[in-house]
Formats: sequence, C-alpha cells, structure tokens
Amino acid sequence: MDEQAVRQLVDALPAGVVLTDPASTEAYRRDWTRAEDAGTPLAVVRARTADHVRAALRWASEHRVPVVPRGTGTGLSGGATAVEGCLVVSTEAMTAVEVDPVTRTATAEPGALNAAVKAAAAEHGLWYPPDPGSFRISSIGGNVATDAGGICCVKYGVTRDYVLGLDVVLPDGRLVGLGGRTIKDVAGLPLLRLFVGSEGTLGVITRVVLRLVPRQEPAATLVAWFDSPRDAGTAVVAMGARTRPSMLELLDRAAVNAVEDFRPMGLDRTAGALLIAQSDAPGPARAADLEFMAGCATAAGAREVHATDDPVEGEAFLEARRATGPALDARGPQLAEDVCVPVDRLPDVLERIQVIAGEFAVEIPVFAHAGDGNLHPVVLYRSEDPGSVQRARDAFTDVMRAAIAAGGTITGEHGVGRAKRAVLPEQLGPDVLELTRRIRSAVDPLGIMNPGAIC
Amino acid sequence: MDEQAVRQLVDALPAGVVLTDPASTEAYRRDWTRAEDAGTPLAVVRARTADHVRAALRWASEHRVPVVPRGTGTGLSGGATAVEGCLVVSTEAMTAVEVDPVTRTATAEPGALNAAVKAAAAEHGLWYPPDPGSFRISSIGGNVATDAGGICCVKYGVTRDYVLGLDVVLPDGRLVGLGGRTIKDVAGLPLLRLFVGSEGTLGVITRVVLRLVPRQEPAATLVAWFDSPRDAGTAVVAMGARTRPSMLELLDRAAVNAVEDFRPMGLDRTAGALLIAQSDAPGPARAADLEFMAGCATAAGAREVHATDDPVEGEAFLEARRATGPALDARGPQLAEDVCVPVDRLPDVLERIQVIAGEFAVEIPVFAHAGDGNLHPVVLYRSEDPGSVQRARDAFTDVMRAAIAAGGTITGEHGVGRAKRAVLPEQLGPDVLELTRRIRSAVDPLGIMNPGAIC
Ligand SMILES: Cc1cc2nc3c(=O)[nH]c(=O)nc-3n(C[C@H](O)[C@H](O)[C@H](O)COP(=O)(O)OP(=O)(O)OC[C@H]3O[C@@H](n4cnc5c(N)ncnc54)[C@H](O)[C@@H]3O)c2cc1C
Ligand SMILES: Cc1cc2nc3c(=O)[nH]c(=O)nc-3n(C[C@H](O)[C@H](O)[C@H](O)COP(=O)(O)OP(=O)(O)OC[C@H]3O[C@@H](n4cnc5c(N)ncnc54)[C@H](O)[C@@H]3O)c2cc1C
Repeated sequence: MDEQAVRQLVDALPAGVVLTDPASTEAYRRDWTRAEDAGTPLAVVRARTADHVRAALRWASEHRVPVVPRGTGTGLSGGATAVEGCLVVSTEAMTAVEVDPVTRTATAEPGALNAAVKAAAAEHGLWYPPDPGSFRISSIGGNVATDAGGICCVKYGVTRDYVLGLDVVLPDGRLVGLGGRTIKDVAGLPLLRLFVGSEGTLGVITRVVLRLVPRQEPAATLVAWFDSPRDAGTAVVAMGARTRPSMLELLDRAAVNAVEDFRPMGLDRTAGALLIAQSDAPGPARAADLEFMAGCATAAGAREVHATDDPVEGEAFLEARRATGPALDARGPQLAEDVCVPVDRLPDVLERIQVIAGEFAVEIPVFAHAGDGNLHPVVLYRSEDPGSVQRARDAFTDVMRAAIAAGGTITGEHGVGRAKRAVLPEQLGPDVLELTRRIRSAVDPLGIMNPGAIC
Repeated sequence: MDEQAVRQLVDALPAGVVLTDPASTEAYRRDWTRAEDAGTPLAVVRARTADHVRAALRWASEHRVPVVPRGTGTGLSGGATAVEGCLVVSTEAMTAVEVDPVTRTATAEPGALNAAVKAAAAEHGLWYPPDPGSFRISSIGGNVATDAGGICCVKYGVTRDYVLGLDVVLPDGRLVGLGGRTIKDVAGLPLLRLFVGSEGTLGVITRVVLRLVPRQEPAATLVAWFDSPRDAGTAVVAMGARTRPSMLELLDRAAVNAVEDFRPMGLDRTAGALLIAQSDAPGPARAADLEFMAGCATAAGAREVHATDDPVEGEAFLEARRATGPALDARGPQLAEDVCVPVDRLPDVLERIQVIAGEFAVEIPVFAHAGDGNLHPVVLYRSEDPGSVQRARDAFTDVMRAAIAAGGTITGEHGVGRAKRAVLPEQLGPDVLELTRRIRSAVDPLGIMNPGAIC
C-alpha cells in the first residue's frame, strides 16, 4: 500500500475523520481481549456519517485493503482486533438516538451506547431490554454485530429479538436498508437476520431500528447458597420448568471469593455456589414465582435461601453479580470463556470445568447466565509464567470442547471473533463451515471484511 | 427429462415414496392460493426420512430438475405451487414430535402439524406459542419456512423466535445441522436465521428444534366497537404504549358482516370496526390491563366496550375472530393480502384500503393482527367476470403499494412466494434484491430450489 492511496482517503473525507499517525491509531488496535499480536492499521476512519463509511469502504475495495469494523472495542473475542495494514472503520462518533413513542421504536446510530438507548427509551416510559454487562461502554452497533446477550435475556431475549431495521454499508460501499419500523416483515430472504451477529464480516452497520417494550415492572429477588455448583445447576433446571425468571445468575465459590476480595459485602465464602434469581411478574404472581423458585432451591439442597421484595435489598445482591466482572478482572490476566449448553447439561458441565481446571493446574472461576445455560468460566494465568499461559490456553480450548461434547456451543453471546476461530470448525463441521464461507464471499467477493474473524 | 431418469429416482427410494401418476401428483400442484397456472410435476417425493429427501435432492441436482418443497400446502402466497416439470418434495409424512421437558424443547419432523407440537408440549405443561390461523392444518416445517405468525405474536413473537435448531438438506443433497438445543448460540454466521423464512429457496428442512415456554395463563378479554376503523386503529396505538396484550385483533364492518352471515352470533353489523383484545398477565395485573385498554378504547371514541374475565365468554368472542377466515372464504374467490405497517400508520392505511376498494369497485373486507400492524385485507372478485378479476389484481397490488408507501411491507407473515414476487422489487430496491440473488446462488449454485418463488 503506497502512501498516495492513503492520502487519497484523507483528502476524500473531512479533516479529523481519517487518523493516520501511530499515536492516534494505537488506541484502535485492540479490543477488550488485548491481543498481543494485534496488527497496525494503515489508518482509522472515525466516521461521523454513513457517507464517511461508504467512502471508506469504496476506497478499501478499490485498493483491496482489509477493513476491521469497530464500535467501542469492548468485544471479548477479538473481533475488532486490527490486522496488519488494515483500515479500521470506527463508528464510535455516530451517536444519535431518537425514540418514537408511538411505534415504540428507537432509531440509533451505531456508536450510541447501549445505555444511551436505554436512557432515551426510559424518557418515554419505554424499555430497551438487552443488557450486556458492558451496557455502559459498548455501542449498539457492536451489540448488533455480536448479537449481544445479557442478564435479562433469560426472559427477554437477546439483541436480535429487538432489531427491526438496519442500514448496512456493503463492502463495495453501497448502502442498503433492511427491514424498518414494521414489527413483522417476511418480504424476501431474511437478510436482516443474517447481519445480526455477523461480527463485521459482511458490512458496516450505520443505523439500527430497535423495538422497545413497556417499562419493566419492579423485580423481587431470591438468593440461594449451595454446597456445590452441581446442586445450583439442578435448582436452575427445576426453576425454568414453571417460571420465567427475569434473571437467573450463578457464581461459583471462586467467583464469590473474588467479589468478596474486591468489595467485601459479607458473601458466604465457603459456599460452593450462589444463585441470584429475579422475577418481575406483576403483582402477587411475583411472590408466587419466588416461592416456587425457593422451593426448587431447597429441593436441590440449598443451604440457605433468602427472598426479598424490597428493591433496595435486591439491588445489593445484584451488585454482587455486577461486581463479578471487575472483581475477576482484578485477578489479573485471563481468557474469558462464553460457552453455552442445553440447560439440563449445566450440572455436568460445571463439574467438568473444575476437572479441567485441575488437569491444567489453572484457576477457573465461573459466573453464568445460568437460566440460559450460558457459562463464563474465566481462565486465569500469570503472564510472567509461559507454562501457565500455555496451560490456560489449553484449558480454554478444553472448556470449549466440553461444551461441544455436551451438545452446546463455544460462544453463547461474545462471538467467535479471532479468539475462538481455531475451534469453530470442531463445532460446525466442514459442510456448515463451507456454507458460511460461500455466503461470506457472496456478500464480500473481494474478501476485505474483517479477515480472520469467525473463519 | 426422460422417463429413464424418473425411473432411477423411483428405484432409488422405497415403494410408495415416489408418486408419478397424474392422479396422485395432482393433489401436490397447488397450495391454498389455488393458482390456475400451476405446473405439473414430473414426480412427487413423499419423504418419510431425511435420507429420502437427500436422495431426491441429489437426483434433482444431477438432472437439473427444479425442486418445490412442500409441507401441507396451506400457504397463502403460492410458495408451494408446482412449476412445470418439477420435483415436489413433500415432508407431510414426516410427523414425529418429541418433547424434552427438562430443556423445554420440542424436536419435530417437518411434517408434524403445528397443533401436534402444541399438544405434545401441553402434555408436559409446556406451550409452543406460535399460532397461525392454520395451526390445525399447517406443518411445522412450513411454519419455519414461512416464519409463520399468528394471533399471539403481538406478545409472544413469531416462529423464528422459537427455532433453536434445524436440519436442512442442501440443494446438493448434503444434510447440515444448524443450532441445536442450546438457547443462546452465536458461533459463526447466523445461518440458522437465514433458513427461517427462506420459503423453500435454500434447502429442505428435515428437523426442527423448538423452544417451549411454561403454559400460558388464562386470559381476560376485551371487545370494543367503533364507528370507524380509524378510531379502532387509534385505540390500538394507545393500548400498545403501556400494556403487552396477548392478542389484539381487528375486524372491519365487512368482515364482521361476513362472520355474522356465516355463523350468526349477534355481532353489531352496523359498527365500523370491532377490536378483540386479550391480556394473559397474571393475577390482578390482568384486570389492570383490561381497564387500561378499555380506557384507550373509550378515549378513541368506542361506542361500546365490554370486558370479561370469564374464559367461556372470552372464547365466544375469539370464535368470531377464528370464524373470519372461513366466513370470508365462503364469500367466494379472493386474493388474500398480508401487508404490515408501522403501528402508527394503521389508521391511515385502514382508510386508504377502503379508498382503493372504491377506486377499483371491489369489496375488501379487512381483518388484522392489529397490535403488530399486520393487516389481512381480502380482495373479493367474481371469477366469471374478467373485469372484476383484473380489478381485484390491481387493487391487490395497490394495497401493497400503499403499505410500502407507509414504510411497511408487502408481507408480514405469509411470505412472498409467487403471488407477490412481482411487487417485491418495489419494496426492496435493486441492491437488496441483487444481494438476495447472490446469497441464493451461493447456497444453490444450480438454481434448482423453488425457482420463481421470492425472486
Ligand atoms: C465488562 C464487560 C462485560 C461484558 N458483558 C457482556 C454480556 O453480558 N453479554 C455480551 O453479549 N457481551 C458482553 N461483553 C462483550 C462486549 O461488550 C459485546 O460483545 C459488545 O456487543 C461489543 O460492542 P462494541 O461496541 O464494544 O464492539 P467492538 O468490540 O468494537 O466490536 C465487536 C464486533 O462487532 C463488530 N462491529 C462493531 N461495530 C460494528 C458496526 N457498526 N458494523 C459492523 N460490525 C461492527 C466488530 O468488527 C467486532 O467483530 C462484555 C464486555 C465487557 C468488557
Ligand atoms: C385458514 C388459514 C389460516 C392461515 N393463517 C395464518 C396465520 O395466521 N399466520 C401465518 O403466518 N400464516 C397463515 N396461513 C398461511 C399458512 O398456513 C402458513 O404460511 C404455513 O406456515 C404454511 O405451512 P404449510 O405446511 O402449509 O406450507 P406449504 O404451503 O406447504 O409451503 C409454504 C412454503 O414453505 C416451503 N416449505 C414447506 N415445507 C418446507 C420444508 N420442510 N423445507 C423447506 N421449505 C418448506 C414451501 O416451499 C413454500 O414456499 C393460513 C393459511 C390458511 C389456509
């Protein structure tokens, strides 16, 4: 790539949109996975409009430059990691959000934070449910590109359940509109759905139309302490059979201890697992749900069960769950897992993970969106010890294999990105992988979009 | 196509699986649209196993024979209409259903009726929500292939919201498994989603894994009579702002009269529109929902509002809604519309449809899944009067154009099939259409799958 071509791009866009000096582009090389082998981009386009994105992609097509789309870089699978000599197209500066209370839709630019969408909806008494742990720092475009999940998914579904419309700039620079503000639309192949979760491999999302729902009812909270993750897993399976909890989260002993180290809140350090469940059913149905769930916990051998309808007390327990990410972050370098299994396999897989931890002599605290069978085992390592790094990598891979063996998936919500690419073929098999590649080339014949991500 | 090739197919499959005599194949030429220009198939494969489907598609690929997949033929857009010299692959004989109450999933063969899935779920106290009006006669494979909707969608979503896994036989005869019993799975491009709603253009679905939910609570019912569809539409918009009704249906005056002619039940023939709403919120929340919705109806000018918590009385009103299809069918030949618009455009579009009816001197009774903005205007004609046939076709097209102009879609749930193919480009535009074709050829390079459907 010659400098002249980059010059062309800089000249084609308003001042400040194209960053080329290493001091500025450095910040766009890595996402939350902090990949050590991240490449150095030729340039970063900090788009302010869809037209900037179009110009960037036309230029990249013309010069066959790989494009790495980027939201706010909170991804946990390396999907936004720069490749050598790429053009990073960042949508972080496109942040407008507009709510239409009559159709109960939000129209957002991709760089708007999830929290900004929630806030805009709340101003009209409406609610945008998807709530990744990163909701205060991740972009809605990134959420759509990864089909992000969160804590309330167990009842309210994931990002794709709320996407009604998208504008996408295709690799050749054409902008297409898919869907709209209409709730039901089956006209043509469901291309809209293909783009949700496509991890920047098919185009750059420049506008999102989201469905909103009426404001959530206040929730009641149940906490239950178990001797083992297996018992907690058993309780989870039972709870789902008759209730639709609005939250059903699990922390194992190591995760509880990490939280307690990080921010002491009197959690029981000796328990094998903690479940935190909520029901937001209206009126007395809420109390009935809690009673039922408490019964499930007791039947599964809970050593202590506590229920509260007091939002402030409930919030305190939620705080423990919310602190888990930061608390584990504080434990040092780690590989963040995101496997998901059919719910009935939860007890087995929770046990299997601890066996793997033992085999590789690494610590693997686990927290989980347990109601969906979505586990976040966090494989800790010490970067100064190459042996520990390698063992952590092997354990990370083994956890994915355990999920596949249980009929599950290597990623429930974070995406494949670059971090899980090597193992994806084991889950999908050669035919699905080949089909994936065929579809990808149909949309991106030059192969410039996010090369190395997914497959 | 020589007879020898067909002989090969007959010999390759067990006796009775391949039908070739015109008396047997006749029944597989048309779906519910009863297209007069339906082609004559070379043969029909009544598959009993996925392997039969594989053999059929391998054979079709080898001989470049067009394939028309078919469930139970209740489609309303001509997606299963035979093309001349095609192979119809019917999955109606693959009817097994199995429910796993622990993971709350159903695994069904494609020919299982929607009602059979519901019944199997109910045996375990579980519920499969999607409820197209055809649920007693349409297959789950057809439901998935069209992403079928229904009455409870307004709260519980459409077919795609319940599909966790699919087995699909690709055009070349390979069988791929997509997804599984896992609730959340973002590993790889969302190919699973691409197949839901693909109307038989990408492959033949041979197995479906569906998510089930706990049994529905009993619902309370509200009926409200209005002077005009516009007023009813205004009430619908207001109701959705704060409640999540589990049903929100509209019948205009002509539809009410058709029902009353068909099965007298004392409906008010003079009203401009009837709304039937339900809430299945638990406990007192149900009554609160009804009170709120009644207030919306009154504020929008309802001439009469009646609410009941008595399931038997509620069922009687639902009967009126359920009788609408048959009652309108009894009115004679018709073109069944299925447009969908953003909910705020409902009042305008309802009015616009009556203007179109006047312009073309045809009758267009309307019933609607109003809560989702999904309208079923039914354009009546007299087959013995060529002028009326042409005017009905023109009105049918104009209604679609009105929906597009309102930012809506030509099909909310029935699909494009062959009946709406001509108008699809006006909605999607050339770029999305081209993208659709590229993706279709990527999956089906020989172009044998359901040619003429969608585009
Ligand atoms: C503390 C923490 C908690 C988290 N909790 C959760 C959680 O609960 N659930 C969950 O699902 N995830 C979670 N994540 C992961 C992450 O926040 C999500 O994946 C999020 O959706 C990424 O958004 P982003 O804007 O940061 O995207 P980025 O990291 O910038 O990019 C992610 C992927 O999307 C693509 N992309 C981004 N923007 C666009 C666009 N406009 N067009 C096309 N492609 C684009 C990128 O190429 C990349 O492949 C968490 C992360 C952190 C740091
Ligand atoms: C009285 C009545 C009421 C209706 N109400 C509704 C309603 O409320 N909501 C709604 O959405 N629809 C409704 N419909 C339309 C219709 O029932 C649905 O579209 C249904 O999903 C079609 O299922 P089927 O098995 O009859 O499919 P078919 O008509 O046989 O086929 C429909 C399409 O799916 C494809 N297909 C079928 N099976 C497979 C398979 N195994 N693999 C791949 N492709 C396949 C066909 O090629 C075709 O394109 C109604 C129809 C009637 C007659």
